Amino acid sequence: MKFNNRNIFISSQARVGANVKIGDNTSIYDNVIIGDDSIIDNDCIIGEPLATYYSQTNYENPVTTLGANSFIRSHCILYAGSTFGNNFSTGHRATIREYTTMGTNCRIGTLCDIQGYASFGNYCWLHSNVHIGQKSTIGNFVFIYPYVVFTNDPTPPSNICIGPTVGDYSQIAVFNVLLPGVKIGKHCLIGAGSIVGKNVEDYQLVLGNPAKQIKDVREIKSRETGEAHYPWPLRFERGMPWKDIGFEKWEKEQ
Amino acid sequence: MKFNNRNIFISSQARVGANVKIGDNTSIYDNVIIGDDSIIDNDCIIGEPLATYYSQTNYENPVTTLGANSFIRSHCILYAGSTFGNNFSTGHRATIREYTTMGTNCRIGTLCDIQGYASFGNYCWLHSNVHIGQKSTIGNFVFIYPYVVFTNDPTPPSNICIGPTVGDYSQIAVFNVLLPGVKIGKHCLIGAGSIVGKNVEDYQLVLGNPAKQIKDVREIKSRETGEAHYPWPLRFERGMPWKDIGFEKWEKEQ
Amino acid sequence: MKFNNRNIFISSQARVGANVKIGDNTSIYDNVIIGDDSIIDNDCIIGEPLATYYSQTNYENPVTTLGANSFIRSHCILYAGSTFGNNFSTGHRATIREYTTMGTNCRIGTLCDIQGYASFGNYCWLHSNVHIGQKSTIGNFVFIYPYVVFTNDPTPPSNICIGPTVGDYSQIAVFNVLLPGVKIGKHCLIGAGSIVGKNVEDYQLVLGNPAKQIKDVREIKSRETGEAHYPWPLRFERGMPWKDIGFEKWEKEQ
Repeated sequence: MKFNNRNIFISSQARVGANVKIGDNTSIYDNVIIGDDSIIDNDCIIGEPLATYYSQTNYENPVTTLGANSFIRSHCILYAGSTFGNNFSTGHRATIREYTTMGTNCRIGTLCDIQGYASFGNYCWLHSNVHIGQKSTIGNFVFIYPYVVFTNDPTPPSNICIGPTVGDYSQIAVFNVLLPGVKIGKHCLIGAGSIVGKNVEDYQLVLGNPAKQIKDVREIKSRETGEAHYPWPLRFERGMPWKDIGFEKWEKEQ
Repeated sequence: MKFNNRNIFISSQARVGANVKIGDNTSIYDNVIIGDDSIIDNDCIIGEPLATYYSQTNYENPVTTLGANSFIRSHCILYAGSTFGNNFSTGHRATIREYTTMGTNCRIGTLCDIQGYASFGNYCWLHSNVHIGQKSTIGNFVFIYPYVVFTNDPTPPSNICIGPTVGDYSQIAVFNVLLPGVKIGKHCLIGAGSIVGKNVEDYQLVLGNPAKQIKDVREIKSRETGEAHYPWPLRFERGMPWKDIGFEKWEKEQ
Repeated sequence: MKFNNRNIFISSQARVGANVKIGDNTSIYDNVIIGDDSIIDNDCIIGEPLATYYSQTNYENPVTTLGANSFIRSHCILYAGSTFGNNFSTGHRATIREYTTMGTNCRIGTLCDIQGYASFGNYCWLHSNVHIGQKSTIGNFVFIYPYVVFTNDPTPPSNICIGPTVGDYSQIAVFNVLLPGVKIGKHCLIGAGSIVGKNVEDYQLVLGNPAKQIKDVREIKSRETGEAHYPWPLRFERGMPWKDIGFEKWEKEQ
């Protein structure tokens, strides 16, 4: 049904691993390395050259690395110079610019727009339509929900570029703005529709415009069980490395 | 100008009606049924297979049905397993995932992202860039404006998925978030930039973060005429089935 | 690497200038005029016909003009009937509908959605994912940041369409909504996450939902220098015509 070898371009300078499927109408440019058992779906561009490609006669595309078992859904554009760990997956139409680094098992949703020069740990899950400005630093197991924007210029326009920082396990709900340079601790929950301009300590729920500290996340009850839901790794294991082991046991083994 | 039969893929398992135009670079996969007199513009994917396609050797694509007189603008992705009534139309780059059902005469704008497992009545109009989470239930004649998000997880991340419900004729203005499980009545107006966490009764205007009940929509005056504008079907008939008849007469005939 | 002349369609009714590069899978339709030294990247559609193309047998595509040295990145859709001055550039997947006019040196980011019948002066920079409703009027040197929406219907749905107006040099930060018909003066700053329903005088900072006047922008200090940052043209010259001359000298020469 799919993968008909129709209108595909693969640079002779690209290195495609074993058992990789490439979708119709996809282009893979110079110095792209794709790990084994990956799927690059149709209409994708992998290794999109940087702006200097258009002006430098001796331009060489920086290396782009996709780990093993990657799954890039259709219509994504991944710029050259980025590195993605094993088991990376995307939705449709994501745009990820140059010099983005992602650990293993990251997932990037449909329409995400990552501006490059950003770093993500392992197991970061970005839902649809998340905008990550340059110089953002994101820990491990950080989940970001639709229509969140990470900003980096406190007095636009200027030449200052200071991205937000988010600690491990924090959850950034829908429709949040992280203002330039803000630091979010570990295990935080940023409630929907917040504009976050002040640093947030570990385990805090913040909410509102401007965002205010509401309470400790460990006081939030699940609608389902009526019991504490956070820290969430104790209650949620789908797709997580502590599946069937439990978070506490897994954490001790790290 | 368009429709040059360039680089088109149509599965032998698809059923394309009479007088259907298929744009260049479009793919139509297994078990897609396209009604007569439809236009599927260029660079579209109709019947995109589900995730199980990549893992199941005996995968069969579920049936996708587009009614007569559909108009799918370029670059849309419609997953398999969805059903769209007659006169369905879209803007560009919409993504509609599996098991979405839409009645007749629905319109979905550019960049909309419908996550699947959602139901819409007749004459729903979604403007650009609307995000509908799974398990959302939307009535008839519901209009949703740009950058609205329907959410479904009250304590992210969790395995709970309870989408919002919106009653007939309600209007969800730009930049609104409907929180998980919220129920909006009929003929409501949700003002721009609201975060709606509480149920809204019929005919109410709600507004703010968090959204509060402001007044009855029947008290809102039109800027143009100075008279009551709501219930809007009494003042607006472009594209509506009560055009040239009037809403009251049409409603009685239903 | 790019520009392999693969699967390109150029209408015989289009006029392509000297030294223009056209990317793979791009379509250029009737009555498009592309200025010299331009780059139209891959997977673009230039001169997309209007809705009447599908119904009128004698349809003629209105003229679309791209000035010299344009750079349209991949996957953009530019409708027919628009005019763009010299040095126009875009990110990826921008959609610009009919009868949009832009002066010189404008930049439109990834995923922007301009609904047509809108006018922009010179040197307007729209970052990613900006939505501009019909009948919007934007001055010169206006910068608009991600997830901003310009609206035009005060009582949705209605047949009223009154777009916002923005004066020269104003900055519209992330996540702002300009409500229908609102007028923003010159040199204003609209802070992140605001819903702007009232007119804003020159040099004002407004903020909040609903947006309130906070102070004169000339009182805002730079985080970097501790000195006044606004009017920003005195402190920022990257890409601006006053580069190396200074804004005050440049302004006198106009």
